[in-house]
Amino acid sequence: MQVPVVVRNTPRTQLEVVEGLAGAGVATVHEAQGRTGLLRADIRPIFRPARVAGNALTCEVAPGDNWSIHVAVEQAQPGDILVVTPTSPCDDGYVGDLLAGSLMARGVRGVVIDAGVRDVATLTDMGFPVWSKAISAKGTVKETPGNVQTPIVCAGAYVRPGDVIVADDDGVVVVPREEAATVLKAARDRLASEAAKRPRLNAGELGLDIYQMRERLAGKGLRYVDYVESP
Amino acid sequence: MQVPVVVRNTPRTQLEVVEGLAGAGVATVHEAQGRTGLLRADIRPIFRPARVAGNALTCEVAPGDNWSIHVAVEQAQPGDILVVTPTSPCDDGYVGDLLAGSLMARGVRGVVIDAGVRDVATLTDMGFPVWSKAISAKGTVKETPGNVQTPIVCAGAYVRPGDVIVADDDGVVVVPREEAATVLKAARDRLASEAAKRPRLNAGELGLDIYQMRERLAGKGLRYVDYVESP
Amino acid sequence: MQVPVVVRNTPRTQLEVVEGLAGAGVATVHEAQGRTGLLRADIRPIFRPARVAGNALTCEVAPGDNWSIHVAVEQAQPGDILVVTPTSPCDDGYVGDLLAGSLMARGVRGVVIDAGVRDVATLTDMGFPVWSKAISAKGTVKETPGNVQTPIVCAGAYVRPGDVIVADDDGVVVVPREEAATVLKAARDRLASEAAKRPRLNAGELGLDIYQMRERLAGKGLRYVDYVESP
Amino acid sequence: MQVPVVVRNTPRTQLEVVEGLAGAGVATVHEAQGRTGLLRADIRPIFRPARVAGNALTCEVAPGDNWSIHVAVEQAQPGDILVVTPTSPCDDGYVGDLLAGSLMARGVRGVVIDAGVRDVATLTDMGFPVWSKAISAKGTVKETPGNVQTPIVCAGAYVRPGDVIVADDDGVVVVPREEAATVLKAARDRLASEAAKRPRLNAGELGLDIYQMRERLAGKGLRYVDYVESP
Amino acid sequence: MQVPVVVRNTPRTQLEVVEGLAGAGVATVHEAQGRTGLLRADIRPIFRPARVAGNALTCEVAPGDNWSIHVAVEQAQPGDILVVTPTSPCDDGYVGDLLAGSLMARGVRGVVIDAGVRDVATLTDMGFPVWSKAISAKGTVKETPGNVQTPIVCAGAYVRPGDVIVADDDGVVVVPREEAATVLKAARDRLASEAAKRPRLNAGELGLDIYQMRERLAGKGLRYVDYVESP
Amino acid sequence: MQVPVVVRNTPRTQLEVVEGLAGAGVATVHEAQGRTGLLRADIRPIFRPARVAGNALTCEVAPGDNWSIHVAVEQAQPGDILVVTPTSPCDDGYVGDLLAGSLMARGVRGVVIDAGVRDVATLTDMGFPVWSKAISAKGTVKETPGNVQTPIVCAGAYVRPGDVIVADDDGVVVVPREEAATVLKAARDRLASEAAKRPRLNAGELGLDIYQMRERLAGKGLRYVDYVESP
Repeated sequence: MQVPVVVRNTPRTQLEVVEGLAGAGVATVHEAQGRTGLLRADIRPIFRPARVAGNALTCEVAPGDNWSIHVAVEQAQPGDILVVTPTSPCDDGYVGDLLAGSLMARGVRGVVIDAGVRDVATLTDMGFPVWSKAISAKGTVKETPGNVQTPIVCAGAYVRPGDVIVADDDGVVVVPREEAATVLKAARDRLASEAAKRPRLNAGELGLDIYQMRERLAGKGLRYVDYVESP
Repeated sequence: MQVPVVVRNTPRTQLEVVEGLAGAGVATVHEAQGRTGLLRADIRPIFRPARVAGNALTCEVAPGDNWSIHVAVEQAQPGDILVVTPTSPCDDGYVGDLLAGSLMARGVRGVVIDAGVRDVATLTDMGFPVWSKAISAKGTVKETPGNVQTPIVCAGAYVRPGDVIVADDDGVVVVPREEAATVLKAARDRLASEAAKRPRLNAGELGLDIYQMRERLAGKGLRYVDYVESP
Repeated sequence: MQVPVVVRNTPRTQLEVVEGLAGAGVATVHEAQGRTGLLRADIRPIFRPARVAGNALTCEVAPGDNWSIHVAVEQAQPGDILVVTPTSPCDDGYVGDLLAGSLMARGVRGVVIDAGVRDVATLTDMGFPVWSKAISAKGTVKETPGNVQTPIVCAGAYVRPGDVIVADDDGVVVVPREEAATVLKAARDRLASEAAKRPRLNAGELGLDIYQMRERLAGKGLRYVDYVESP
Repeated sequence: MQVPVVVRNTPRTQLEVVEGLAGAGVATVHEAQGRTGLLRADIRPIFRPARVAGNALTCEVAPGDNWSIHVAVEQAQPGDILVVTPTSPCDDGYVGDLLAGSLMARGVRGVVIDAGVRDVATLTDMGFPVWSKAISAKGTVKETPGNVQTPIVCAGAYVRPGDVIVADDDGVVVVPREEAATVLKAARDRLASEAAKRPRLNAGELGLDIYQMRERLAGKGLRYVDYVESP
Repeated sequence: MQVPVVVRNTPRTQLEVVEGLAGAGVATVHEAQGRTGLLRADIRPIFRPARVAGNALTCEVAPGDNWSIHVAVEQAQPGDILVVTPTSPCDDGYVGDLLAGSLMARGVRGVVIDAGVRDVATLTDMGFPVWSKAISAKGTVKETPGNVQTPIVCAGAYVRPGDVIVADDDGVVVVPREEAATVLKAARDRLASEAAKRPRLNAGELGLDIYQMRERLAGKGLRYVDYVESP
Repeated sequence: MQVPVVVRNTPRTQLEVVEGLAGAGVATVHEAQGRTGLLRADIRPIFRPARVAGNALTCEVAPGDNWSIHVAVEQAQPGDILVVTPTSPCDDGYVGDLLAGSLMARGVRGVVIDAGVRDVATLTDMGFPVWSKAISAKGTVKETPGNVQTPIVCAGAYVRPGDVIVADDDGVVVVPREEAATVLKAARDRLASEAAKRPRLNAGELGLDIYQMRERLAGKGLRYVDYVESP
């Protein structure tokens, strides 16, 4: 059996880049890096609106066991987002208001967890954002520690310590740390491009014309016919 | 292989009837037309409260491909609601803030989609209501156009262009355009009937008595017994 | 075939104890009684925040049939929470604003239902809390009465009339009436213990130290290593 | 409230065409009619292998109520397939061995139901194929009749009496009766085309070459690179 | 926190009655006791056909932890069926071929588990039937024992030690031990009644006539109309 | 937007090790590598029994688009298993009998796909094993190629080209190629250990005694009590 490991001194992405990605938002960042890195869509924020970005602080937990989250807190640095994945599917409430207070005290900006969270009324009052698969009051034991700050798969996405997590009302995306600056630039280009098109669309100009789609649609065989009352 | 088609000049329901149905709300309209026409209950509004009615502007999309939505925008008329169904289940974010702005510019009142939507924070700020199966930042391609303004099945309901869509916090219902005026009348009768019973119920009078249920319940064998502590 | 039965004069838990449990909240009550009694996590409140406790008024319903809820209203006493379970899974909207008004008039504090509810916009305006598996406008018939005030399984939990239901943003928990006072005491002890730890955690002290976890973690084989760039 | 209706003397598709479509199978028929008409993929056969086609005998049922299936039996003709949809989602066992025997006696070839079935061991012994969403022993009442032989939506597909149902291990597809002969011809063309390609593919020739995909892939930007050990 | 408990010398149902219920099968037993006691329909056998009945040997397990199953084996008696429920939803493979061999050695006839099972190829070869929510190779730890031979809720049904479990291809039903003999008699009556109707239905006689439904259907408003080609 | 890439000449694991892992089976391999690497449990074989191992040939596909599978076939080598993941959830039938024939011709041993498959009756006759999330007749387009032979996340597991895939009736596990030989050795040790215990368990000896669990259970507070009839 493998023994659990905590990896210290993992790399992190520069917070200036992280903030830039937060500003772009999940949908834009996801597009900017070639439509990759999205977590499953059932990972939802416990309150809305919410938008945050941070360095991934990764954590594996056994089903029904949140011990390694306590271990992870010690590894936290300001600007981190805790990313938690269970080793098999579990909806238990791994994080509550005490752990949230502890994480906030260490500068952690939020939690992304492919499992459950509890005390959500208090977390909402605290303004501590969590994206989770479930809300559940079910408590957890402390018997089986898991890995901290190792690469994990969370909600279908591969996340390494120090990759950038961007989370908002649309969901959660991960950006590999080596690509973060490039993705930020592409995201800003995309925002600029959208900003140019938005007033035209809002004025009633058609996407068919703006994006010059008519010829290609015809090439695909699209036909226009007039309605005929069924005989 | 069938080629995709856009049907122009489809019939629509008179907006005066449409507004009347909006006023009645989904649950009442659904009852008034004999408990038919509801979409699946997992089609949920992205913000609450929300209530709207409109003429169905129908649109089929390929999985992960929103091209025909751009085609549909051109067919929109003020008072429409865009109704989108994928040809196989898909949670991708087919509609975002740019398309929403384009739809609003054409007078479209909202979107009902058996798939995903994105930019929901912005859509909420815009006050543009969407009922969807998912919220997802996942973008879509433009490779395979689908039918626009043909009859479709959306979330388990059969919807034709110009049928009336009523959507609120309880879900979404479709009313065939030929029956819209009749259903409106039945809905108003039902509202009046409920208005007569509400004060009696709120005053503590029992439904058992108001609806004269006691005899029929006895006929079904319902027995009343007193609690006995288990021995 | 069994005939349906209504059990009158079932025992209830003292409201003073019930209020105390409401004050503690679901997660704490669940912990205080040994992590038992939680309903499935997909039973969610129709609005947030919401927190309430009451005596279980139990009710079985046939799929798509809410007749026995009307029967249950007559058995209600102030301080009750109506707990409804269908005899097979069903998402129909069993409760709407008329029934809610009727229940409020009898002093019922809320509804917990392993099925659907409708008129949620109105229920929200009324401040009448409901925890349900679904929101659905689908109406129900009145053909097959079920048992009222008998022990039931609701959303995976065993509930007897007069057991205490505590419901908040985290979900729903049931406390057997014989244990309610004991659980309340344990819940208050737990709240006091948490109150003592909260300022230390919020000040940045680690759970690893407060709970003295380090030695036990080492005994489980937890190792700390330093990050090495992959070769 | 609408009253339920039984439509007699509905049109049917010629059995010779029906048998032809059975021979082609679901995947081929679905392709041949432009990738339309599939029922949801969670409708699965109770035993495999199974393949059958027939004229749709449609039936709506209330949740937990199979009364209209008894009504439908009388409308059956040899070569029919009973297609059942509940008015709201329900997994109850609507059909068991007695009804199956009754249906077989009338020449019905199988059942497609967006709900549950029971007595599956006996049905398997009888060789009576059923495609269903669930297997459930839960019985049903006879209180609320529904429509028989009217157009319905079953598992996401629009089905009218006399449309052709084709069902096999891959699922279920519906073919509009007006298009059945045309679809059969297209299906046979497709089978012939596949028969020509199968030996080439089985001999190791690449689809990339047979379908001449390489140029178009390059046009989409596909790049070939050699593996480099990560540094 | 409650400590886990093992209850010894719990009552059991006479095996002669148990065998009788096995002979009747799940659907019939469920009907015979008034359509109660069914477990959720997603509890499915790992191989088919399978049919067995036995005394419930109950066992609670923590998520991802099968320790109490080992404790339960010691309490087993010939004719038991092990019934396992996790304290929160978990699909892990709690039982494999070693435990199955151990259970068979103690005379246990099968397992019903609202969680996962593994080694299903071997279990199939052994002829050891299991009804489970999932098949999963995921192993479990031995850190947190749970209750053995206490009343539990398994897959939505309330099960006490010594209640009768009947399981076959249609699912699983529990019969309270005090009612087992009465239910057996009712089940046999039902089988006799069905045996009388089966040949009539198989000969083509209609349920409408055998059950004399026509008048009651007319009373519900059922209308017969002839098909009219849509204009 | 990133352009899709095909990586040629990726490393593979020695087939001798691969065969050894096939012999051990999924549950044992999963245990032997520290309970890691399992794919989600809803990835199920289309026929049973089935057991196979091979080198991962990885492939990303767009939703509803199987173009890159055709690209992947060219990269196949004898002993490979094709592992396919869609970029967003999709149940379409990406692989049918033609592609299966093509893959078999290149020596591919099976397919693992977090999506759908079709022609399953034919694939069963061919003895070509597939583990999939769905069976669906829904066809796919060829418009958007994806990456081939790059690291992917498939059904929650991180898979690189040349990692070992082991698949059987219990599910699918991936073994990193660098660890394959070590895991094989650990798996064989585990098999030997189980072989030593199996006859003792089958002879009725208790796991409580073989694994010396009694003292540790007492330390966890496990109590034995005798059944008392409820008063």
